[in-house]
Amino acid sequence: MSTSTTSDAFVLDDTTLDLLFREARTANTWTDEPVSVEQVREVFELIKLGPTAANSQPVRLLLVEQGPGRDRLIPHMSGSNSAKTAAAPLVAVVAADTDFHERLPEHFPHSPGARDWFKDDASRERNAIYNAALQTAYFIIGLRAAGLAAGPQSGFDKDGVDAEFFAGTTWKSQLVVNIGHPGENAWFDRLPRISADDAIRVV
Amino acid sequence: MSTSTTSDAFVLDDTTLDLLFREARTANTWTDEPVSVEQVREVFELIKLGPTAANSQPVRLLLVEQGPGRDRLIPHMSGSNSAKTAAAPLVAVVAADTDFHERLPEHFPHSPGARDWFKDDASRERNAIYNAALQTAYFIIGLRAAGLAAGPQSGFDKDGVDAEFFAGTTWKSQLVVNIGHPGENAWFDRLPRISADDAIRVV
Repeated sequence: MSTSTTSDAFVLDDTTLDLLFREARTANTWTDEPVSVEQVREVFELIKLGPTAANSQPVRLLLVEQGPGRDRLIPHMSGSNSAKTAAAPLVAVVAADTDFHERLPEHFPHSPGARDWFKDDASRERNAIYNAALQTAYFIIGLRAAGLAAGPQSGFDKDGVDAEFFAGTTWKSQLVVNIGHPGENAWFDRLPRISADDAIRVV
Repeated sequence: MSTSTTSDAFVLDDTTLDLLFREARTANTWTDEPVSVEQVREVFELIKLGPTAANSQPVRLLLVEQGPGRDRLIPHMSGSNSAKTAAAPLVAVVAADTDFHERLPEHFPHSPGARDWFKDDASRERNAIYNAALQTAYFIIGLRAAGLAAGPQSGFDKDGVDAEFFAGTTWKSQLVVNIGHPGENAWFDRLPRISADDAIRVV
């Protein structure tokens, strides 16, 4: 299945690198095989170990099963994303908790003043979004490590989703990730990527 | 070395999950073993395949070797981060290119209007930072897949680094990642993580 070549740069084998990156793709169609909440919880238990600034861990997941919950989500998806998200066995609305700093006395206990580093609302929200984005990528990799396809979608009405699901909370939706096993014609050809020469400089 | 238990949730084995997440840690000390620019370029060639919104791929890397380049970076690091970054075999200043949209005709060719989705400067910068953060996490995972320790540091003067290295460009520094092989007493005990019950809701 893999067309990749072995590189001395890695300690993991090509099969693993293919699963995580080279053969992994954003799926647009799904088989009927279900994905359990429990499996995604296990993925979370793995990926929550990934690093964040000041161990802030702002990412939160709303898992949306098929049924009434999904029906509330779909109207907020944009264009062709609606059908993909409607069909996915399980969907995660990935959010950032802008009040992550309230937990720093527990999560960053050696710096008792850490909570006060994030007093400013705008700066705290930027930190929440940035570190939740790091954790969202860990989550996508973790789903792939579980043999699942992840279909991240940024095309949705965030304010609508927040009003629908997160009213009265400090969770702010960032991304919708469809989760399942890829179905027939699950993806288009891979799109072009930037060259290392264009993306990397050395001093 | 691993104390982890096997879980049915994953298709990758425990040794791999340990390398990527469970045993991986932010290193504070380093062995003398060098890290080559070429190895990090190979990591980039892998991780650039990870998904971003509209295939935007805004992440950029400035690799800072030991020597004059490193000497220019260190004064901008905060507190105890200075010594760690000074000692690292190789350092990557991870940046977001706020003009990523100029490449969308090449990177997202089936949507000729994609460049215009990002006309607004503030919205485009938010998208650059968010998607570069996703790619930064892929990069951290990719370094680990190469058997390297990654030490992400957010404590540095971004404006100072941008003026020092990125003046006249559209690259904006986001994170400094120390890269190498862990040395003696490379890390403290792992800090507490949030429970799945607190981070996950289901509808």
